[in-house]
Amino acid sequence: MQPKFIAISEIIIKRIKEGELMPGDKVPSENELISTYKISNTTARKCLLNIESRGYARRIKGKGTFVLNRTVEHQLVRTLGSISSTRKGFNESLIAEGYTPKNIIIEKNILNDGISSDIMGKHYIIDGAVLKIRQLRYADDILMKDETRYISLKLCPKIDRLSSEISYFKTYEAQYKLKISDIKQTLSVDILDPSSALNNFEVEKQIPIFVLDSAIVCESEQVIEIERSFYRGDKYKFAINAHPEYNLNYSFNPDK
Amino acid sequence: MQPKFIAISEIIIKRIKEGELMPGDKVPSENELISTYKISNTTARKCLLNIESRGYARRIKGKGTFVLNRTVEHQLVRTLGSISSTRKGFNESLIAEGYTPKNIIIEKNILNDGISSDIMGKHYIIDGAVLKIRQLRYADDILMKDETRYISLKLCPKIDRLSSEISYFKTYEAQYKLKISDIKQTLSVDILDPSSALNNFEVEKQIPIFVLDSAIVCESEQVIEIERSFYRGDKYKFAINAHPEYNLNYSFNPDK
Repeated sequence: MQPKFIAISEIIIKRIKEGELMPGDKVPSENELISTYKISNTTARKCLLNIESRGYARRIKGKGTFVLNRTVEHQLVRTLGSISSTRKGFNESLIAEGYTPKNIIIEKNILNDGISSDIMGKHYIIDGAVLKIRQLRYADDILMKDETRYISLKLCPKIDRLSSEISYFKTYEAQYKLKISDIKQTLSVDILDPSSALNNFEVEKQIPIFVLDSAIVCESEQVIEIERSFYRGDKYKFAINAHPEYNLNYSFNPDK
Repeated sequence: MQPKFIAISEIIIKRIKEGELMPGDKVPSENELISTYKISNTTARKCLLNIESRGYARRIKGKGTFVLNRTVEHQLVRTLGSISSTRKGFNESLIAEGYTPKNIIIEKNILNDGISSDIMGKHYIIDGAVLKIRQLRYADDILMKDETRYISLKLCPKIDRLSSEISYFKTYEAQYKLKISDIKQTLSVDILDPSSALNNFEVEKQIPIFVLDSAIVCESEQVIEIERSFYRGDKYKFAINAHPEYNLNYSFNPDK
């Protein structure tokens, strides 16, 4: 069974989500919670701390607990730092979450002179012909991601002739038999202005936007793909798991 | 030696960084680059693609390449998804980068009733007494991070009596002999408004802000620490490396 303080937190959070309690409004005080829900002051305190630690409100000393000005609606979570999560394509993830994906290709052409990108101060270069493909990716008709990929045609010949509905990552592995050794990613943020020429997102007010740069490198240290994508910051959240290097007593097994 | 297209890109990027070319301005065209630098059209094209792929400009078909409205000044990079990077404290990282760190504790007290946090839809709960410590963390007198940690006093008795200049993470390992098995983190973004009551950052215009939630879990699956921190989005960038699970032919070695 759910602890009582969580059950009551959920009631308050529901009121915040539904807009009954607005950003800046005061959340019920400890004493109000005690008298409304007939709970102990310990439970009331836990409840306020829970609402605060989950990011819906912040306590200001001597003044009370106030609803935060955050977009607390359901956000999509994408895991970074895991090849198995990357393998799952954009469409596949959305379908699993109950959305209808749609992709519109707004640019697809071959650059003959290669491409380079800076990630964490390092140059990643793809030599020779590169497929540039820019796609607008929608969930239930809302633009979620503006994605540009540059794919090595030397490593993936004729990939430009495949349907762009594929998971490119899976295709590198399955069709081109490339062994991925590394995915380098950096995440930065920006504010997207409705008046910006880059506003494919058609937002009517400013929103935060994630900028994801990545490079996929294979065992021969050649770069397979460089990506620069923009994700709606009010719709996405990124999750990262740290790997417990020193807890794994691994040894190399050459027979495998 | 640096390829010629990179050298010329750097010249243009320098003009963007120094504000000679402003957001929305047109970057020199292919033909202008050819006549200014006496280069081939291949080199000129590579140069524009390089500036675009590094995020300083974007090409708009049939119109030219325009400087992006991004804060392209030097950003601090922090690596997520790596325990060894987490081990390095906030101060230590800044000093290595040539900054002078300063920390101001604005709240430090003991909560007797535990705390809980939602990360990736999972509840992380610390039972019993918890040290809550909120610190404002500066680099060269600019507030970079507003950090709140909740630390289990059951797992780390008397940690409230230690100097807060320590790296807490190292202390969990070295002093309390805790084996960290997992760090779960999520990164979301928001826009910080100068008028916000939460504006410890004292910004005069809107800035994007990273919200980092994390939970540090030890081998017994008990939660050592829950953190919620705000990082200036115009000053930070996060890097993530994906680990190549299937390239490691590991096997468990029980003798180790």
